[in-house]
Formats: sequence, C-alpha cells, structure tokens
Amino acid sequence: MLLEKIHNSEDVKKINQEQVSLLCAEIRQELIHTVAQTGGHLASNLGVVELTIALHRVFDFPRDKIVFDVGHQSYVHKMLTGRLERFSTLRQYGGLSGFPRREESEYDCFETGHASTAISATLGMARARDYLAQDYAAIALVGDGALTGGMCYEALNDAGNTGTRMIVILNDNEMSIARNVGALSAHLTNLRVSSEWQNAKLAMRKFRRVPVIGKPVYRVTHAAKTMIKTALVRADSIGFFETLGFEYFGPIDGHDVNGLEKTLRKAREFNGPCVIHVKTKKGYGYDKAEERPEIFHGTPPFLVETGDRAEKPDCPSSGHVMAYTLMDMAEKDPRIVAITAAMPMGTGLDHFAERFPERMIDVGIAEEHAATMAAGLASGGMRPYFAVYATFFQRCYDQMIHDVAMQKLPVIFLLDRSGIGGEDGRTHHGLFDFASTLPVPGIKVLAPCDTRELKQILLWTLTETEPVVIRYARAGDDVPESQEERFQPGKWKRLQKGKDLSLLCVGTMVRHGLKTASLLSQAGIEAAVYNCSSVKPLDEKALREIQARPFFTMEEHMVSGGFGEFVREKCAELRLREPEICFGVSDVYLQHGNHGQLMKEAGLTPEQMALRIQGWLERNQA
Amino acid sequence: MLLEKIHNSEDVKKINQEQVSLLCAEIRQELIHTVAQTGGHLASNLGVVELTIALHRVFDFPRDKIVFDVGHQSYVHKMLTGRLERFSTLRQYGGLSGFPRREESEYDCFETGHASTAISATLGMARARDYLAQDYAAIALVGDGALTGGMCYEALNDAGNTGTRMIVILNDNEMSIARNVGALSAHLTNLRVSSEWQNAKLAMRKFRRVPVIGKPVYRVTHAAKTMIKTALVRADSIGFFETLGFEYFGPIDGHDVNGLEKTLRKAREFNGPCVIHVKTKKGYGYDKAEERPEIFHGTPPFLVETGDRAEKPDCPSSGHVMAYTLMDMAEKDPRIVAITAAMPMGTGLDHFAERFPERMIDVGIAEEHAATMAAGLASGGMRPYFAVYATFFQRCYDQMIHDVAMQKLPVIFLLDRSGIGGEDGRTHHGLFDFASTLPVPGIKVLAPCDTRELKQILLWTLTETEPVVIRYARAGDDVPESQEERFQPGKWKRLQKGKDLSLLCVGTMVRHGLKTASLLSQAGIEAAVYNCSSVKPLDEKALREIQARPFFTMEEHMVSGGFGEFVREKCAELRLREPEICFGVSDVYLQHGNHGQLMKEAGLTPEQMALRIQGWLERNQA
Repeated sequence: MLLEKIHNSEDVKKINQEQVSLLCAEIRQELIHTVAQTGGHLASNLGVVELTIALHRVFDFPRDKIVFDVGHQSYVHKMLTGRLERFSTLRQYGGLSGFPRREESEYDCFETGHASTAISATLGMARARDYLAQDYAAIALVGDGALTGGMCYEALNDAGNTGTRMIVILNDNEMSIARNVGALSAHLTNLRVSSEWQNAKLAMRKFRRVPVIGKPVYRVTHAAKTMIKTALVRADSIGFFETLGFEYFGPIDGHDVNGLEKTLRKAREFNGPCVIHVKTKKGYGYDKAEERPEIFHGTPPFLVETGDRAEKPDCPSSGHVMAYTLMDMAEKDPRIVAITAAMPMGTGLDHFAERFPERMIDVGIAEEHAATMAAGLASGGMRPYFAVYATFFQRCYDQMIHDVAMQKLPVIFLLDRSGIGGEDGRTHHGLFDFASTLPVPGIKVLAPCDTRELKQILLWTLTETEPVVIRYARAGDDVPESQEERFQPGKWKRLQKGKDLSLLCVGTMVRHGLKTASLLSQAGIEAAVYNCSSVKPLDEKALREIQARPFFTMEEHMVSGGFGEFVREKCAELRLREPEICFGVSDVYLQHGNHGQLMKEAGLTPEQMALRIQGWLERNQA
Repeated sequence: MLLEKIHNSEDVKKINQEQVSLLCAEIRQELIHTVAQTGGHLASNLGVVELTIALHRVFDFPRDKIVFDVGHQSYVHKMLTGRLERFSTLRQYGGLSGFPRREESEYDCFETGHASTAISATLGMARARDYLAQDYAAIALVGDGALTGGMCYEALNDAGNTGTRMIVILNDNEMSIARNVGALSAHLTNLRVSSEWQNAKLAMRKFRRVPVIGKPVYRVTHAAKTMIKTALVRADSIGFFETLGFEYFGPIDGHDVNGLEKTLRKAREFNGPCVIHVKTKKGYGYDKAEERPEIFHGTPPFLVETGDRAEKPDCPSSGHVMAYTLMDMAEKDPRIVAITAAMPMGTGLDHFAERFPERMIDVGIAEEHAATMAAGLASGGMRPYFAVYATFFQRCYDQMIHDVAMQKLPVIFLLDRSGIGGEDGRTHHGLFDFASTLPVPGIKVLAPCDTRELKQILLWTLTETEPVVIRYARAGDDVPESQEERFQPGKWKRLQKGKDLSLLCVGTMVRHGLKTASLLSQAGIEAAVYNCSSVKPLDEKALREIQARPFFTMEEHMVSGGFGEFVREKCAELRLREPEICFGVSDVYLQHGNHGQLMKEAGLTPEQMALRIQGWLERNQA
C-alpha cells in the first residue's frame, strides 16, 4: 500500500501524479473502513483528502503551521504524519484523538474542538513568527459553517489590519444553493450577484414560512449554513475579504490536487493575509456519505455496504424526548419558540422544526447571539428554549449572566451532552456547567435523572417566569426506580430508604447511585438514595432530614464548583453536617474513550464509589 | 426651563423647531453640570442629544422599543422620560443608574452594560412582535466601536436572513480618518473607495511600524476603532449591510434634528431590517470633551471651566503599575507582548504602547478573539499579557478553557477592575472570576493584595510556563503591613500573628482583614491575618498551621464559587477544619453606588465583619 510508505510532508512531495490519485483512493478506503468501526467524523474528512495532500505537497510541516478549525477534519493529516499505524485506535481510549492534539504529534501545532477559533490562533502564530523574526507559513483551515461564528469576524478584522502573512483556507462544502452561486467569481458583476442573492434569500424566506414537506430534517440542517454561505459567496465576489484587508484566491476545485497546489504556491508567496476559497464536497468518494452528509458528519459505527448504523439505539435520546415534549407544549402555548446554534439534529430540534418550522430559529454557530437574542424574545413576551451542548454553552457565559440572569428573563437553556462526553474527548465534555451557573444569582439549575423527569421539568417551565438551566445527558434510558410525577423546584426525591447513609445524586449519577447502594447492601450497608434534580434551589428540608447519618454526593461534573461543593457550602451556611465525599471529576482533563472507560478513570463507577464509601465507613466508624 | 416640561415622547413631539434647539442646549447644560458632579459617561451622551430627541419625535416610546448598546449613552433618553428630577442622583447609591434599567422605567426595555448585545436583543424583540402579531418598532442604537464585537456580526447575519422589520442605528462618532471617508455614500465607485481604503490602510500600517511621537495615547486609543470604521464605511459604500440583507440609509448628520427625523420616518415605514448610518461627534457642544473625547468617555467628577479632574488620585492605579512593570520586563524580554480589547487607557496599557507600539495589540471589543489569538502567540513562543476588566473577561470564558488552559499555554490574563465595581453598577462588577477559573484544570489563579505584590507576581510570571490569571482592583494604594518580596505560588504570607483566630484574605480584603483584626483586638480578640494571594494553588501548609483555631475567609467575590468555598473544598478533601464564615457577596446582584456603600450593603466592612466574627465566637465558645 502506498499510504504505508508516507510518514511526513517530504514523502507526500516525492510521489508522482498517478500515485497521488492512488493515494487519495487508499486514504478514502482507510477513512471509510476505520470510521465504520470507530465512529467519528467521516464526511468532512472525505471532503478534504485532496486538499490535505496538496497542503503537504506545498508546505513543510511541522515547520509550517496549520490550525484545523473545529479539528474534526484532521484525520487525513494524521494519516500522512506518522499516525497511520495507530489510525485504527481513533477515538478509542488510549488511542488517537479525533481532534488535533499537541501531545500526539509535533504536526498538531494547535488544538481545536469548538468552532471558529482557527483564524485567531493562526494570526497569533503569524504575529509570533514576525516578532521572533522567524519564517514559516501560518495556515487556518476553516469550514464555511464555522464562519457564522462572530469570532471569525473579529479575527479577520484584526488580521486584515495587521497585514501579516497568513493564509485562511475557506473549505466551502458544496451544498444545495451552493450549486447556484458556487460558479460566482470575483469577475461577476454586482448586478447578477445581487439578483441571485435576492432569489436565494426569497427562497429561504419562503422555506421559513411554509410547513416543511419532503425531507425537512435535511433542509433545516442546512438552512443556517446555506444562508451564511450565500452571503459569503456573494460577498466574496464584491470583495468582502478584500474589504477586510485580505487578498482573495478562488473559488477553486477542492478535489483537483494539481489546481490546489498551484494556488497554494501562489498563496505561500503572498506577503500579507490571504484567503483561498476552496470548494469541496462533503462525503466525496463514498456515495452513502455524499447522499446524506449530515448523517455522516459525526457518525456512530456503521455498515460500509449500506451506510446504516451498526447498532440501533435501544431508546430515543434525551434530545428526542425533549423535542417531542416541547412540540406538545408548543401546540398549546403559542409563545414557545426553539433555538439552536447550528445543531438541529444533534439537539433533536429537527423534529420540532418539522412540526413548527416557523417557531424554530437556527442562528448558525453563534451561541453568544443565540442567548442574547433569546433574552430579547423573552423580553418581548415569548418563551424561548435554547438547546445547546453543555460544552458549547461555555460560549455564551457572559450573555447568560449579563443578558438573561440579571434581567431575570424566562429563557430556558437546555444543556444536552452534559457530563463526560466520550469519544470526542476533552474539548467536548460538559463538565463546567454547574460551576458556571450556580454562582449566578437569579437562575435555577436543574438536572433530571432521566427522560421522564426531563419531560416533567419541561412541563413545569411553562409556569416559571425566571431563567432556568436544565442539564441532561445524551442517553435517554430511564431509571427504573424513578417515577413520573410533577416536578417541584427545591424538592429532592428519595428513591430508596436506607438507615446507614445517604447518597445525594444528580442526573446520570442517580442510576449509578442506585447501583452503588445495591453493592453496599451486599456488604450489609443500607444506603438511602436521593434524586437531587433541583440543584439550585436545593432542598434544605431533605438536607436536614439526612443529618443523622453520613452522606455522599455524586455527579458527572468537576468536583470544584459542582453540585457537591454547592451542597457543602449550603450545609456550612446552615451549620449542618456536610457531605463526606463529593464524587465527581477531580482537577484534571479527561481524555477520549467510551463513557464507561472515562467514568472509571474518574473513579465514578458504582464499584469504585462503593469501595471508597466502605473505606470511609471503616475509617470513621471503627 | 423647557426641559422640565418634558416627561415623555409625546411632550418631545409637541415642541417646535426653535424649541428643539433650546432643548438641546438645556440638555447639554444639564449633562455637563451633572456629570461634572457625579462622574460618568459624558462625551457619548453629548454626541447623541439631537439623535435622542429625533427618536422621541418620530417614535412612540415605550410602545416602540429601543435598546442602547453598552447603554452609557442613555442619559438623554432618561432625561426625556420622566427622570429629570432624579438626574442629579445619577450613578449614586439608590439613585438613577448610568445604564438602562428595567426596574427604573418602562422606557428602558432591555438592560445593557457590555458591548455588542443590542442587535441580538432587538432582533429577539422584533421576532417576538411578529410571533405575537403585535405592531411596534424595534430599534438598536449601536456605536461603531461596538461593531468590532463578533456578536454584532452574528446578529446582523441572523437578522438579515430573517427579513424582519427592525432598525439598527449605527452611531458613527466622527474621528480622525472618518473625516476623509465620511463623505462616502452608496453612490461612490468602488475604485475611488478602494484607493481611499488602501491609503487609509497604509497609513495605519505605517503608524504601527514606527515609534509613536506626538500624542501617542490618543492615537492608540483610536487605532482599532478607526480601522474597523474604515472597513465599515468602505463596506457600506459597496453594500456590506445590503449583503447581509439590510436596507441602508445614510450617512446622515447626527446633529441635524430635522434631517434625522426625515430618515427615521423613512426607516419606520420600511418593512424589513434596515440600518441608519448616523455621523455624530463625541463630546459635541462642550469644547473640553470635543478636544479630548477619550478622557470624557467615562470621567470622574471634573471642573466644568477647565475640564480638569475635580480630585487628583492619591496614587497611581493598579493598571498604571502593571503597565510600567510590564514595560521594564519587556525591555529585557523580547517575547513579551501586551493585548487589549479596546481598553488601552482603562487598563493602563496606553503607557506600554508609548514605549512599545509594536508590541501592543489592540483587537477592538473582541475578548474572544483576544484570548485565542493570545494562545496562538504563546504557542508560537511569545509571552502574551492580556489585560481586560474582570467583567469583560466573562466574554472569553470558553476561549480561556478551550484554547488556553487545556493546552497549558503561557497566556497571562490580567483582570483589572475585579471585585465590586462601584458607580457603573451590576453589569460592571468583577465578581465571577474565581468561580469561572478555579474549576478549570491547569490554570493558576492569583490575587495580589496591592500594587507591590502585583509587581512581584508579574516578575514571577517570566519564569512560569503555564497559564495564569491575576485579578486586581483598580485602586493602587498599598497595604502598609505588606512587604515587597519575591512571589511564590502556593505560599501564603502571615502579615500579623494572633492566638485566637485567623483571617484568610485575598486581594483588597487583606486591607479590610487587617482593619477587622484591629477592631477585634479592641475587644481583646487576637486575630492572625494572612495574605492568600495564591488562590490556586493554595497553601496547604498554612491551612494545616491554623487548624488549632477557628478561621474565616474574606474576598470581594461571590461567596459561591469563590476563594472561601475553594478553601472549604480543599479542607474537606484533606479532612481539615473548615472556615467558619466565608465573607463575600451573597447570592444577589449589587447595584451601583460608591465602593464603600456597596461593601457595606454586602456586609464586607471591617466593622460588620468584626461584629459577625464576635457573634460567632460568643455562640461557639461560650
């Protein structure tokens, strides 16, 4: 296999034209078959095979620097830089990360995971190079979706003014409207562009106003991205980047290595900031992914032949339940509106959008704007529900405080994928949300233990007039011991009695708490188990009730700033007995792996917790 | 006085042309004389007198809605909406806020304080109006400086796609380059614009590359803003806003009420998103402010005749000391570079820029980009120091975690204005920074007690290879009991012995702790006082040393997520005695007033703390 002989940029440069085609094919085979096993980001990597090869043929990595925006499209780069042998360990515990990682290779010069950071980071590197009188290329590879993030604009503005030598490669995935406008170039007249833009815009508006038929999921997924792209492509043609001080090259075919090389060489020699507009096709070379790029953006393991999932999930996800509950609520309450930041499928809101296309707002990758816009909606009398992954919620921290909480506006934040994230690794865990919200006055923080409770909490929000944060895990399986009953803030539920000690559990840890209790009972220790879904306000009465016995807290969150320490703080204030151990993630970053492996690394399996509790009892009750 | 007869929009509409001029003059008198007493934002309010009057003559507030971006330019609006009588209480404890406040008046429909939020909020309101089939105008008043924030771009993008009826008023303060390009309109050819833009850009680059002479402070202040404006004005002429789906009106003279009214009426009737580009002059009508708008942006009390400060500060601010220390360091270490997000004067970095114009980066109001760009600089071998107000640091929470801390890059965050902020009120306190940083692995958190220690900590950072957050108050007076000595992380300093109890103090509270100890000693209680400037890592040895006696923590921060609870968590982990009381701000928003008044409201004066400690001792040691 040719691919096996490639270990670095030098090796990529040595091969001839025919070998390049062969290499592309081999890489695609490797991508498809590995990701079919491991799961991961397939479509975007299939789209950048030629581009990555061309980059390695023109530039000298690691001397030259490349920052992958988001980083999910760095698989090919990894294969070409000495990591092919380990490629089958992708996203596995102890294996290769699905994102660039500095400790993994000197070819990964800057780590990513969240969108829209690459231009900022690359500009910093380019400036460092200039300050230190060094000489290397600094390149940002950015998808068109990431350009909806305001940070990109801040960075382009700064870079353009600086005038420093850097290259932004805009990876424009070919989609729907793009086919119309993709043919545009800098030579088109404003008039023609203008009319196409108008048509595109009208088409979008029309789409928004009528109920969606056909393939609504697909359409919703692409709405925001397509719109910004349209703006962008039109803007290109009239000098958007040039206005910001960038030289513009393109658009060029992202699957033509030769053409790419030529343009990259030109850009390499350009003494200032420039942008290369590259058109690629997501999923290129694998028909299943080309047909359904949104499914193969991030995919679980699948069957190569059919493109179907290797395993069907046992139950609907939390996001699915959230979306259907919200639909029922929206049916009765016209004030309800759903918001996503470019994640309609991931959050489950694609279902909501099918039924209420008018009441679904996709703002693009723009969490900051989403939160403040939600505050505006709430101040105007609506009830906005902003569903966002816990890790991306970090992006609107200030807006949550300044625009929502301070004004006590009834915005509901739905934090999906909270807790330990799994295979995506440390940039994607949701482990800071309690710490970021609990100290903020005027905001309630809730963590349902399962989808039954999530549903009840959602129904309760209709009566609430203040901001609420609801954090939940992706998994939607229910806790057998929990019952579906009306949610009451400030009220914890005892799921199980026990005379020896109490376990205060939140979210997914309710299940683990119950298992821990069952392990303890085998050792003759009877543990009461509480579901503490109302984290703020917490249940002072329950805290007083359990005072006679030692108690322990359990959460999938950093210990510092988490539920347990919040309980401790309240106990200290009330001069009550405090938790003996707060189970959670200690002061380290968890890497990637499956959820169970990471829980074990964090010491959060029922076995580990039961053992530690037994140890505590032995030490303290001898 | 005519102004006294105006209580709402209706009254503003009733007066005739001549009376309008009189009203403007009266408002300016009131603004100048009140702010001379209270301090506050003068230049921006002088600049929007005519614009605010025109708005009230055309629109019907509070039925129509206006969101003031940042909100520091809402004084005239307050005067015209029933708050003239209370205007002399501006920014005073219990008086009018210097920013829009919903509880203050129904004319303040959305609260602001931080920049770049208004377009998002206004879009939310406009959407709410459409959903609820209501009919009112939704207006965002945004300064050109705020447009450097990426959030604006996210909002414009979303608004343009939506096509909903809303008005963005771009308040373009007339400055330097603006005089050249201000004459541009949509009818100019691209060519002419292009050449002006090129010249402007060249001029800016030239400025960056040569040492600054003449009035460097002024120049640095304006660099970032001018650049974005140039981009903007050029962009206007070629359809930047139109590209994003906005109708564009302007540029128009912001000091001509008649002309403003005409354009506002046109915009009011426009059925879609539109932008009105208004040119105003900061400080208009008060020569001292026109001459030095940056000084009169936010000013302490001053003498109307001369424009000089009413009282000279006793000592240089923390920011001043920081800047001069950094200059000494930069002299020896070429890797040092300073970063500001549009706050060169506020942070003190204007001094640094005078000496090292090349090594000072002003990114505009773009904290997100600043943090990630700093990470890029650090990864490229530089030592970036990003000085930012604690409250604006909230804007780069995710970037701090994701781009700096996770990669352990040596970025130094210098958090100025931390703690209780004072007259600017709740949007400007810096009370969440411990809570946002302490749970994050890999970042050190330090809080010097005075400028001597700030200096020592800065010198220490040169040997540090990981990220550091340094939080300090604006005030630069030193603690007499502290000594200038080498800083050691993880080491607390005992400033005073005492056999009965210990006070663990951070930052400004070291001074208050010493005073509390002195009050306690009058009651025969001897308190040891510790300066705990190393918050993370904290000093376990010191914690063990004080175990024999009760101890208390003191900080200007929220109790929840703060230093005290961090100490409690560590004590629980080490199974040590915990603090008896954690002094800090409880779960409420402090309003505006002078620092002493707010400290009292929070229960943080030495008298209050001494009393509570005595009460605790009586209850627990009887």
